[in-house]
Amino acid sequence: MTHGLRSSVGKVLGVTDGFSTAKITLKVLLIGLIATSIAAVALETVESLAGRYRVLFMAIETATVAVFTIEYALRLWVAPEGSLAKTTAPWQKRVTYAVSTFGVIDVVAVLPAYINLLLPINPDWLRVLRMLRLLKIARYAPGLPLFFAVLRNESRPLLAGLIAMVVLLMLESSIMFVLERHAQPMIFASIPHAMWWAIVTMSTVGYGDVAPVTALGKVFGGLAMIIGIAMFAVPAGILATGFAVEIRKRDFVVTWQTVAKVPLFVNLDAARIAEIAHLLRRQVVPPKYAVVRRGEPADVMFFIMSGEVEVDVRPRPRRLGRGEFFGEIGLLSDMIRTATVTTVTECELLALDVADFRRLLDAHPDLKAAITKVAEQRLSTSGTPPSDGPPA
Amino acid sequence: MTHGLRSSVGKVLGVTDGFSTAKITLKVLLIGLIATSIAAVALETVESLAGRYRVLFMAIETATVAVFTIEYALRLWVAPEGSLAKTTAPWQKRVTYAVSTFGVIDVVAVLPAYINLLLPINPDWLRVLRMLRLLKIARYAPGLPLFFAVLRNESRPLLAGLIAMVVLLMLESSIMFVLERHAQPMIFASIPHAMWWAIVTMSTVGYGDVAPVTALGKVFGGLAMIIGIAMFAVPAGILATGFAVEIRKRDFVVTWQTVAKVPLFVNLDAARIAEIAHLLRRQVVPPKYAVVRRGEPADVMFFIMSGEVEVDVRPRPRRLGRGEFFGEIGLLSDMIRTATVTTVTECELLALDVADFRRLLDAHPDLKAAITKVAEQRLSTSGTPPSDGPPA
Amino acid sequence: MTHGLRSSVGKVLGVTDGFSTAKITLKVLLIGLIATSIAAVALETVESLAGRYRVLFMAIETATVAVFTIEYALRLWVAPEGSLAKTTAPWQKRVTYAVSTFGVIDVVAVLPAYINLLLPINPDWLRVLRMLRLLKIARYAPGLPLFFAVLRNESRPLLAGLIAMVVLLMLESSIMFVLERHAQPMIFASIPHAMWWAIVTMSTVGYGDVAPVTALGKVFGGLAMIIGIAMFAVPAGILATGFAVEIRKRDFVVTWQTVAKVPLFVNLDAARIAEIAHLLRRQVVPPKYAVVRRGEPADVMFFIMSGEVEVDVRPRPRRLGRGEFFGEIGLLSDMIRTATVTTVTECELLALDVADFRRLLDAHPDLKAAITKVAEQRLSTSGTPPSDGPPA
Amino acid sequence: MTHGLRSSVGKVLGVTDGFSTAKITLKVLLIGLIATSIAAVALETVESLAGRYRVLFMAIETATVAVFTIEYALRLWVAPEGSLAKTTAPWQKRVTYAVSTFGVIDVVAVLPAYINLLLPINPDWLRVLRMLRLLKIARYAPGLPLFFAVLRNESRPLLAGLIAMVVLLMLESSIMFVLERHAQPMIFASIPHAMWWAIVTMSTVGYGDVAPVTALGKVFGGLAMIIGIAMFAVPAGILATGFAVEIRKRDFVVTWQTVAKVPLFVNLDAARIAEIAHLLRRQVVPPKYAVVRRGEPADVMFFIMSGEVEVDVRPRPRRLGRGEFFGEIGLLSDMIRTATVTTVTECELLALDVADFRRLLDAHPDLKAAITKVAEQRLSTSGTPPSDGPPA
Repeated sequence: MTHGLRSSVGKVLGVTDGFSTAKITLKVLLIGLIATSIAAVALETVESLAGRYRVLFMAIETATVAVFTIEYALRLWVAPEGSLAKTTAPWQKRVTYAVSTFGVIDVVAVLPAYINLLLPINPDWLRVLRMLRLLKIARYAPGLPLFFAVLRNESRPLLAGLIAMVVLLMLESSIMFVLERHAQPMIFASIPHAMWWAIVTMSTVGYGDVAPVTALGKVFGGLAMIIGIAMFAVPAGILATGFAVEIRKRDFVVTWQTVAKVPLFVNLDAARIAEIAHLLRRQVVPPKYAVVRRGEPADVMFFIMSGEVEVDVRPRPRRLGRGEFFGEIGLLSDMIRTATVTTVTECELLALDVADFRRLLDAHPDLKAAITKVAEQRLSTSGTPPSDGPPA
Repeated sequence: MTHGLRSSVGKVLGVTDGFSTAKITLKVLLIGLIATSIAAVALETVESLAGRYRVLFMAIETATVAVFTIEYALRLWVAPEGSLAKTTAPWQKRVTYAVSTFGVIDVVAVLPAYINLLLPINPDWLRVLRMLRLLKIARYAPGLPLFFAVLRNESRPLLAGLIAMVVLLMLESSIMFVLERHAQPMIFASIPHAMWWAIVTMSTVGYGDVAPVTALGKVFGGLAMIIGIAMFAVPAGILATGFAVEIRKRDFVVTWQTVAKVPLFVNLDAARIAEIAHLLRRQVVPPKYAVVRRGEPADVMFFIMSGEVEVDVRPRPRRLGRGEFFGEIGLLSDMIRTATVTTVTECELLALDVADFRRLLDAHPDLKAAITKVAEQRLSTSGTPPSDGPPA
Repeated sequence: MTHGLRSSVGKVLGVTDGFSTAKITLKVLLIGLIATSIAAVALETVESLAGRYRVLFMAIETATVAVFTIEYALRLWVAPEGSLAKTTAPWQKRVTYAVSTFGVIDVVAVLPAYINLLLPINPDWLRVLRMLRLLKIARYAPGLPLFFAVLRNESRPLLAGLIAMVVLLMLESSIMFVLERHAQPMIFASIPHAMWWAIVTMSTVGYGDVAPVTALGKVFGGLAMIIGIAMFAVPAGILATGFAVEIRKRDFVVTWQTVAKVPLFVNLDAARIAEIAHLLRRQVVPPKYAVVRRGEPADVMFFIMSGEVEVDVRPRPRRLGRGEFFGEIGLLSDMIRTATVTTVTECELLALDVADFRRLLDAHPDLKAAITKVAEQRLSTSGTPPSDGPPA
Repeated sequence: MTHGLRSSVGKVLGVTDGFSTAKITLKVLLIGLIATSIAAVALETVESLAGRYRVLFMAIETATVAVFTIEYALRLWVAPEGSLAKTTAPWQKRVTYAVSTFGVIDVVAVLPAYINLLLPINPDWLRVLRMLRLLKIARYAPGLPLFFAVLRNESRPLLAGLIAMVVLLMLESSIMFVLERHAQPMIFASIPHAMWWAIVTMSTVGYGDVAPVTALGKVFGGLAMIIGIAMFAVPAGILATGFAVEIRKRDFVVTWQTVAKVPLFVNLDAARIAEIAHLLRRQVVPPKYAVVRRGEPADVMFFIMSGEVEVDVRPRPRRLGRGEFFGEIGLLSDMIRTATVTTVTECELLALDVADFRRLLDAHPDLKAAITKVAEQRLSTSGTPPSDGPPA
């Protein structure tokens, strides 16, 4: 019985799959609590609010620590429900969670409050430690691990960029110090002072608290700006490229899992699904968007992953939902869309290009038979083809 | 008769195709009115102008509201002329327009003025509401929907970037607050104050109203600048990539429609047109530009989509226009351009690479025959080949 | 005789090919004169210099106008020598030059000085007109036309970006005006004033002369910064992509012309040269750079387009120059470099990948024979192969 | 014996391979010394520290010069040990080192100190010269030469961008000078003064020391900001693209060298290794990362280049290390991972896609036999397959 309860709690906490409503409710509540708690930490420092709402802020803080402590305890308790590595003992799984990134974040979110009770921390730094609760939100941000993957993959060129920047920073600082120290003895009092100018300028922030005033200083400053922008542009470009590569990789896994659920493909073996997944492009389409328009060239067919579309066939429009497909008649026959298909809700579609469509059907006669059969069925049950057959 | 009139108005308003002169005139007038109206709203707030030109501003406002109200009424009236979904009733189509993005924008452009008559709005916010008229210009900006498509497609990584940024913002703010609050108690009075520093710095705006003054604050500020730029670079890169992908997709549809109108291809079926469209690259070339130069390697042939070019053949230059092609002789024979082809007006060309040209001609013997025939005809009718045959 | 002189002048002015020393000298002199003249225009405005060097500045101005007038007259005179369009009459070619971009720039460089003699121009604007001389430098900047080509190709998405930016600018300005006008009645006196804030912020320039001070204004300002950066990132990305595409296209023409001059390929027809040019990658390598190192994998062979390399074979190093090739033995046999090849001077190389090398040699047996013959010759004349054969 | 000592010193200094511990220790010490020395040069200029720690700063300076002098002498001495060009005489190799980039940097690091003894240099500029020691760090930054390669490859379009920027800078400066000189006679006193505004604005640094105040000046300034950002975006994009291309090239060489060490491939000839290296993608994976998860699609197999992974097979997990591979069973059979593989330490993996895997195995039957044999062995020795076979 304990095991059954533990299993349910594990589902709600998202450790295992299932219970989506309860899980989403908890997720929204926890995100709300993180946001409220962070807002309280920030607003507490505003003197006018600190006096008036002292009790409220303390209540939020206490509630946050209490909830996060319970959450952590529960997560420790349900850790053995985790799907991976069935062979290890429960306590091993608990240790695994405790030393995992999220386990550490969960402890860090509550620990400072308890330490503070025993051994008062400087309230300023306590506030910074409280801010670390924000890291808990990483659990609900599906894209965040991407950042770290990209940073790791591109660490070598990024490091080279950083070294080049530091070298330039030091050289620029020492030269600017020589050029400006007599004109502005307070502002360019030393090379470290000049370094502040250099970083503020190279990053193009340019507060204006430090700027060259001599003619030579300005000429050199202008050069420093041009060089600095190039220096910063390179890491930016590296990051952007790395991000694009990483996203494409992850998209494949998502697509594969979705394709495997399409009724048409459900009997295929995994190898063939992987092959098809390589050919499909994922698209998110807003409601009321005409995916396919009568009279346009038919170059793509679509599989519906989520949402609903409406096909304007006579005598009355037909609706297609999750797992169904449309646009295949145009690819099988005359390449012109003869019906308009509009989304009813936001839809996730997988698009298959005509060239890939033909190659796929040539390679897999059974798939060709299945699609042709659906197309013929559609043509016969309604006077007008459902998606894009010839006009009646 | 009412129907005929409604149809004509629909054409002028761009709901259906046709009447291009009237349509363009109306478009220019409406864009002009939007611009004038927005300028009036902005200039009205300049005190010196507000007094002197009060009557003019009121006249512009009244005229704008009147014209946009009439426009909206007409659009509602002609909505049933819209090309999509012939089966729905006229009133359904009117509702469809009214709740569409453009329908809502059209109402928003005039509604505040009428509400203000019944229930006076704060003049400041009324002005902001008037500014929303500017959204009407989206109807005439062919590239604007692209932005929203890209934002939708890339929403997931962009959201991850935003979350990472918010986490960094909060952590930086609380740390900087600790480091600077004693040195600048007014400027770094609270964490929300420090957040203003963080966002101004991370975005590299750097007004200079808030900047660290302590040594530690400056060191940390320098780190924040480097991190911040990387944080901002990632979304920028995602947007740029997404934009490039989306443009390529739309370009294909435009190219297909253009290729279908080339006389040479007009008898091909849609599948073959799609195949050719995949091979062509669209180029916009300015007037008086030498597209092809005598003596250069011939690696591309061109189809003229719009505009006119001049081929410098003897005895006198020949002009080629929309739907004609040039540069094919070089690809058929010896790969060197022997005539120069210069644009007379701005031209839209579709370029076909030599490798694709050969593959295409090998696959379609009839196309090869047609192109060879034109080339031979050209060689015989003039002593010198029209585009790039051997010099006479 | 006049014709001979005109032809020579044409060569020196770069209208036709030839006379490289004289042409380069003239080019350097003209670039120097443009720079001097522009420097004079700028420094003339410095009061302390204006008085002291008045005569010098006048002399430079007079000399510049004189030289540029003579240059323009000569260019008009030699225009008929231009290589294009042999059929048109000399006066037609002169008109063609006069109305071309460079013809107009050449006139604009001297015209203000003459107009000023007849009809004095405001000295400030005269100075701006003089600055336009700088455009003459475009003739000597091979990459500048690229910019205009890219701007033209990408004009549509760039325009969409501009419209989106203007819409955002107006909305942000009117909202910020409402939020800040009471707190800073002088700085946010009107919407046009607020527009200055918006553009300074969205471009991340952030002078700091205009910044929000109220809490709401700062929150809204923070949002504006994030949106603004995204807005600016898109056009930047479009430009960068377009630039990359255009550079690749131009590189092909340069490569073709270079390949056509390689002795090994000189007897091939143009089609085959184009085919090879598509496979080659152009590289500029500095002096003393080890292009190929003993023991590294051999995946590329090189053709020398300019400069000289040294191969460290026994008994003494051998030098290879323009038109020769190296690295072929590694590709023909065992894929390991067994000799190091170092550049003596800066070299321009064309690299051919091993996969392309094999495909090329399979398709063209005569080319394979020629390369194999050179390789065998090299192996027999020296005990050690010249570039990367097996160690002796 | 001298030769043996010289050889050992050469190994420690990294001139030849070997002695990795001693080499790494020296590297860390030298990097530390460079950093300490640069920090000392910078902090020496802080007046409060200069007085107190004068002796310390002098000691650091003396030690630095001494160590770097000894290092330079040793490098000169061991130069003949360098692996390249066995034929040249020792003194030739010493000259080669002395005039190489690193040779010059090594001299520049110590020379100013000696010159200063003979002929006192201005202490300010002496400090700048001392900063040049920082360049010695380039020896330990593997990515730095990349920057110079990219700058060289893209020098032409970058130069064009620079020229366009200078032209814009001059035109903007002269126009802004006209517009603002009467309103701000001190700040816009001359065109050179306006150039400072132009560069500060175009680089988006925006100190705020110089900004337009007139209405016309602000309108023009806004345009200048938009143009300026585009101008800067282009070189940034060029650099980023060039960087990506160059990284991909270098990665191939590294991958080739690693593949050659994989036991499975060790008997292949170099051509086949190069072929495989072209198919592999290098990945750095952090500790405790699940590379492969039970139930996910199997689209890739991995070779371990460094580090250790754990496969969760029954009865107890198995560890795989450097040179071993995993994930092959999924590719050979049913495409679903049936075991989870987690990294124990940070791992460097080479990934091979399923499509390339099949092509490779079809082309090389012996490779197929070897991999199949390992897979079968694994299936038989443990009840459960090591990486991703069917569950027992």
